Amino acid sequence: MLKQIDLPSRLRSQRELINRELERAIQIGGPDELYRTIRYSLLAGGKRVRPILCLTACAASGGSTEVAMPTAVALEMLHTATLIHDDLPSMDNDDFRRGRPTNHKVFGEGMALLAGDALLSYSLEHVLLHTDAPTSRVLRVIHTLLHTIGIHGAIGGQVIDVQMADREDVDLATLESMHTRKTGALLSAAVVTGAVLGGADEELVRRAESYGMKIGLAFQIIDDILDVTSSLDELGKTPHKDEKQRKATFPRLLGLDQSRRRATELVASAKQDIELFGAGAQPLCAIADFILTRTH
Amino acid sequence: MLKQIDLPSRLRSQRELINRELERAIQIGGPDELYRTIRYSLLAGGKRVRPILCLTACAASGGSTEVAMPTAVALEMLHTATLIHDDLPSMDNDDFRRGRPTNHKVFGEGMALLAGDALLSYSLEHVLLHTDAPTSRVLRVIHTLLHTIGIHGAIGGQVIDVQMADREDVDLATLESMHTRKTGALLSAAVVTGAVLGGADEELVRRAESYGMKIGLAFQIIDDILDVTSSLDELGKTPHKDEKQRKATFPRLLGLDQSRRRATELVASAKQDIELFGAGAQPLCAIADFILTRTH
Repeated sequence: MLKQIDLPSRLRSQRELINRELERAIQIGGPDELYRTIRYSLLAGGKRVRPILCLTACAASGGSTEVAMPTAVALEMLHTATLIHDDLPSMDNDDFRRGRPTNHKVFGEGMALLAGDALLSYSLEHVLLHTDAPTSRVLRVIHTLLHTIGIHGAIGGQVIDVQMADREDVDLATLESMHTRKTGALLSAAVVTGAVLGGADEELVRRAESYGMKIGLAFQIIDDILDVTSSLDELGKTPHKDEKQRKATFPRLLGLDQSRRRATELVASAKQDIELFGAGAQPLCAIADFILTRTH
Repeated sequence: MLKQIDLPSRLRSQRELINRELERAIQIGGPDELYRTIRYSLLAGGKRVRPILCLTACAASGGSTEVAMPTAVALEMLHTATLIHDDLPSMDNDDFRRGRPTNHKVFGEGMALLAGDALLSYSLEHVLLHTDAPTSRVLRVIHTLLHTIGIHGAIGGQVIDVQMADREDVDLATLESMHTRKTGALLSAAVVTGAVLGGADEELVRRAESYGMKIGLAFQIIDDILDVTSSLDELGKTPHKDEKQRKATFPRLLGLDQSRRRATELVASAKQDIELFGAGAQPLCAIADFILTRTH
């Protein structure tokens, strides 16, 4: 029988490692105020799910922590960049994030905009400069990240999100398509890039992608559920916001029970996808379960 | 004696070629509104100086138009992305650009923000997907572009610009450092990437970089001069804006005559830098002269 993983302590130590690397990665000179603005959002806590997925997928494919770390921190930088931009008044207009005022509330909209832009470009530069892997793998990682944050990924998803805000008749397919781009794509990219850097073959990479998309969608469904059921303290961001803004969410379209069932099915299917990783699948399965049972 | 180049007709035909390629490059699916928003700013005319410099430097180094074209259009996409973001109300708050209302005036701030983000990532993806050159050169091009728009380039320059807006005591060194990052870096990257893709050796690449920085700064000095001396019709963007905003400019710090002299010196020095290109230097010299004598 396989040894059971102590996931909470494993996640905690990975998170500490990632936070140290993030801290080191952004000591890059440049204007002081930009540096402070970036630090504020990047080092504000956060679950570090994307870096952890990348490191875990790399290990599951036989690669080292070192080879995946630059990409792992880049994923968190990209994620933070999209959060900073999405929170701006011209977009979702959010006041709280990770338990603190959002970036533009502290540093102004101009600096928040520039901090997001800087993180977009710097994250990729960091991967290029610090990844000790064959050139073809580095290029594939860069391409995956670019595609993921681009028109067919996070940015395209945000456009659909902005357009949906004016509509009352959003259906499940549109909602899933939006979240697949906004959340699924980047979580999936985390697993794919980890697998690529670890040397996984094409079939494993394909499985990793499918697993990532499914847990990404499950992650978002749980996010929507927590927005309904949590307080500001528990959530770290303004709760019940979706409801107030009459946003289309999974609980609103499916109800809470049916939403939970959908997330559970997605996680089960994701775990099947990665059986092919053998023993390496175990920590990825544990993360999938964690996504389902998280409380904030 | 070398045959004199008919620069105006050469620039016109290169511009037409680049516009056709830009039109083709952005037919990429994704949400319709995002596509319209991007088209509006990307295909709004413009001098196409950066793509032309890239193609010309590639040719001067013995490379083909085809190998440099994806990077040439990417440079224009990156330039357009920075313009869209810089024009936003939280930054320079500009109402006109290239003779038309700025992007956010037509499509709203949210879409303008996303269009800029999309162009940032898509431009690099375009280079990766369509450049038929050795992997090491493609990686170097990507790295150069990332560095150029990043913290040590355009974004860092914009931060200094935003900070300068509140100050009365800006000196020449600060002003030049800001423009070197905001304008010089991207013009220089255009020449450098062209040279790299054309197969130039390290010494030539270094010369190309120096040439690009100098004509970049000259380009900005002329911009400042034209802001003082032109009308809206001639300029295509709001004139006398620097003066109204009491912005630090070269004419304000040096006077018009001394500013013109500085630009002339920079262009002369830039032309010396590229003598090593031999016959290939001639069109680059012609472009440097054109930057000095342009009227809009």
